[in-house]
Amino acid sequence: MTAAPSVSYSITVRLEVPAGGRSVSALTTAVEHAGGLVTALDVTASGHERLRIDVTCAARDTEHADALVEAMHAVPEVVIGKVSDRTFLMHLGGKIEMVSKHPIRNRDDLSMIYTPGVARVCLAIAKNREDARRLTVKRNSIAVITDGSAVLGLGNIGPEAALPVMEGKAALFKRFGDIDAWPLCLDTQDTEQIIATVKAVAPGFAGINLEDISAPRCFEVEERLRQELDIPVFHDDQHGTAIVVVAALYNALRVVGKEIGQIRVVMSGAGAAGTAIAKLLLAAGVVDIVVTNRSGIIHRGTKDVAGQLLWLAEHTNRLSLTGSLRDALVGADVFIGVSGPNLLSGPDIATMADRSIVFALSNPDPEVDPMAAAEHAAVVATGRSDFPNQINNVLAFPGVFRGLLDARSRDITQDMLLAAAKALASVVTEDELNAAYITPSVFHADVHTTVANAVRRAAGGPHDLRSVDPAESP
Amino acid sequence: MTAAPSVSYSITVRLEVPAGGRSVSALTTAVEHAGGLVTALDVTASGHERLRIDVTCAARDTEHADALVEAMHAVPEVVIGKVSDRTFLMHLGGKIEMVSKHPIRNRDDLSMIYTPGVARVCLAIAKNREDARRLTVKRNSIAVITDGSAVLGLGNIGPEAALPVMEGKAALFKRFGDIDAWPLCLDTQDTEQIIATVKAVAPGFAGINLEDISAPRCFEVEERLRQELDIPVFHDDQHGTAIVVVAALYNALRVVGKEIGQIRVVMSGAGAAGTAIAKLLLAAGVVDIVVTNRSGIIHRGTKDVAGQLLWLAEHTNRLSLTGSLRDALVGADVFIGVSGPNLLSGPDIATMADRSIVFALSNPDPEVDPMAAAEHAAVVATGRSDFPNQINNVLAFPGVFRGLLDARSRDITQDMLLAAAKALASVVTEDELNAAYITPSVFHADVHTTVANAVRRAAGGPHDLRSVDPAESP
Repeated sequence: MTAAPSVSYSITVRLEVPAGGRSVSALTTAVEHAGGLVTALDVTASGHERLRIDVTCAARDTEHADALVEAMHAVPEVVIGKVSDRTFLMHLGGKIEMVSKHPIRNRDDLSMIYTPGVARVCLAIAKNREDARRLTVKRNSIAVITDGSAVLGLGNIGPEAALPVMEGKAALFKRFGDIDAWPLCLDTQDTEQIIATVKAVAPGFAGINLEDISAPRCFEVEERLRQELDIPVFHDDQHGTAIVVVAALYNALRVVGKEIGQIRVVMSGAGAAGTAIAKLLLAAGVVDIVVTNRSGIIHRGTKDVAGQLLWLAEHTNRLSLTGSLRDALVGADVFIGVSGPNLLSGPDIATMADRSIVFALSNPDPEVDPMAAAEHAAVVATGRSDFPNQINNVLAFPGVFRGLLDARSRDITQDMLLAAAKALASVVTEDELNAAYITPSVFHADVHTTVANAVRRAAGGPHDLRSVDPAESP
Repeated sequence: MTAAPSVSYSITVRLEVPAGGRSVSALTTAVEHAGGLVTALDVTASGHERLRIDVTCAARDTEHADALVEAMHAVPEVVIGKVSDRTFLMHLGGKIEMVSKHPIRNRDDLSMIYTPGVARVCLAIAKNREDARRLTVKRNSIAVITDGSAVLGLGNIGPEAALPVMEGKAALFKRFGDIDAWPLCLDTQDTEQIIATVKAVAPGFAGINLEDISAPRCFEVEERLRQELDIPVFHDDQHGTAIVVVAALYNALRVVGKEIGQIRVVMSGAGAAGTAIAKLLLAAGVVDIVVTNRSGIIHRGTKDVAGQLLWLAEHTNRLSLTGSLRDALVGADVFIGVSGPNLLSGPDIATMADRSIVFALSNPDPEVDPMAAAEHAAVVATGRSDFPNQINNVLAFPGVFRGLLDARSRDITQDMLLAAAKALASVVTEDELNAAYITPSVFHADVHTTVANAVRRAAGGPHDLRSVDPAESP
């Protein structure tokens, strides 16, 4: 597997070349010979002697970007100027902002948006606290909360460094769910302090999206908050992943013609995502699940287990298998990896049952090379965007919260998660379905509303599209 | 003092009248006779027989609005339909929203705003935490935080009911300071828990605006947060008010021709605002301040005082006066009230020195009727928008935080507050200055940038306008 050039490693190089020569085409050639991809070439100033050009090109990674600049530098008579990084440019000053829905042009506007008019709205809510869901931003707002302890694949990088991810998440919530999300990156990794902080800020939000909190702390944080808050709490790393995995599995089973109650699923990884996936698979009707972690197969006899691991030991592996991941894999219908890179090879996949399904979701390097897996498995999915069948949480979380908010739900249940998974799977029609298309694109027009409608109904919300709130005098 | 009709009590009444008659003019007359003000009259449907009309009118208060509807109902052949409240309509679904600065149109956009591109930005910040002020929303974002314990004049109405005020505040921060503020209404009124929560959420913000937290808790919350955080903490009820009062006093002194070092100031109210005003007056060079509260003049011998009250006892009232507010007022140059309604009468003001200054800021009912005060004082100011010289915090807080953010300030000092007050006063030019114009309008083009520039310089920020951050590769 060699990575392709990606716009996420895209640079813009301002340079000067002699006018009228072959320098411009020499530049393009140089970039391409060095393995880069020229995506834009803008002449920003032109004179009789010299041209000033902005060359934008995609690289594989930071070192490759440096190599591309070197390659351009080597073209005769080229003078390299400022090198900008497109991704960093987009992050300058942040990716999100707060805006007022109403213009504030004069004193009349002020007197309704702020004092003295606002006082009547305050009093209405003081009389009936539920009115905050009608008359304030709480109606449509969630908090995206992390402690920075398990950010992407980067690990424990802390709250400030986690902020770009949480801002991006907020932007996605708006784009795909029309939700007003604000990031809160916490300066604590203590379970009790995280719980206390989220409870303290909860009144202004209609939902809590926990993000990138490491296991096992995330389990207790989520469980306690679900018990103690009257708004839904969702840990995307767990439940978002679980929804998309189960949806993809529904469609993969349609492709291979197997029944969900008949399959044997082997999983690698018993962390936040693995545990949530196993639970949702059980709820979806899978009977035979074997979960493995670094120590091998988790079974009733596994020593020194507690919490979620104990739960898994008690609720999975009905045949009490022992041994390694490879042992478990023999004859399995489905492999789901949410662990680490390169644990398996093509020959390992070959030991699975006929028409097997492989979801190798470790990012950026999957548990097994998807090309090698595809030689033996009928359906292969990864977490990467440069292979077919990306398992991407963005398919789930915007619609899930849209549905929860529209139902004014106070909690979130396995039934709602399962409804989301079924709805997501249903977006891929019988005509479209094939081994390379088991998940729709996040830009598919129907994905997010389909998921939202299913979750809203499962949460007991109105069956038809949300109605506009009336605005009578209180 | 009778209140005038205000748009903040504005209703829109949908009704039907016969076509072609005098019903429409009869409606307008009815509203006006009932003391209302018709501000709009829209025919929303017209037929041969009947017209459907939306009549929008301003009332004095809720009861008066009901009376206006009754008056219209009494017009022959008028059928009253839905009655909407304009202020409530503006609050439906909240007044603020979160938006993404960049469109997310395709996978390329996704890969830069979110994964995988965002990971490089995270790593850059993990390496240098200060980069969060350059590459994230922290650059321009503050939290507007309340515990709902002292909201406007409404008292302890709790976090949900406080939300409309905090949203309005956020909208004002954007409108006048181009700042991205997000409201956090806390579900705790415990000092330690408030402090712990604000500290926990601080990494994502470049400043904290505390709002409507009751005294004396607000003093400790602010003091501790200032010690323990590396971003500025500002309690608007204290410092915003103090800045505008001192600015207005500078200009009032210009009007009456007195020197700040020579005047005697008597204050009523030793709560959050009163204490902050007294401190800033001392910093501004006032030598002789006497503060009173419900128990009378605060002096060194006042019993059972602690905290801020002890501070006031030790640092004000240099002549060790004792007695009542009325005793203190005799011969004073300036009265500043931040306490309660109707404590003083015109004859009390008459006992003050020649060319006296009266700031009666209790809202909505001032310490003394401003019309009565104006018979004896040279300059009168209130907190109300329907009298000249409104002392309005909106004049200060947007510019103050704009300056702090542009300077990337880690704290806020009395010097900065004083710089803000001087800058605010300077917006009123010598030509404009008179007894009825000592504070500019919040819509004055220069107010907020003038304050911001002064604060930025006092905070050690760049002397010229803020420069755009460079976006080189890290």
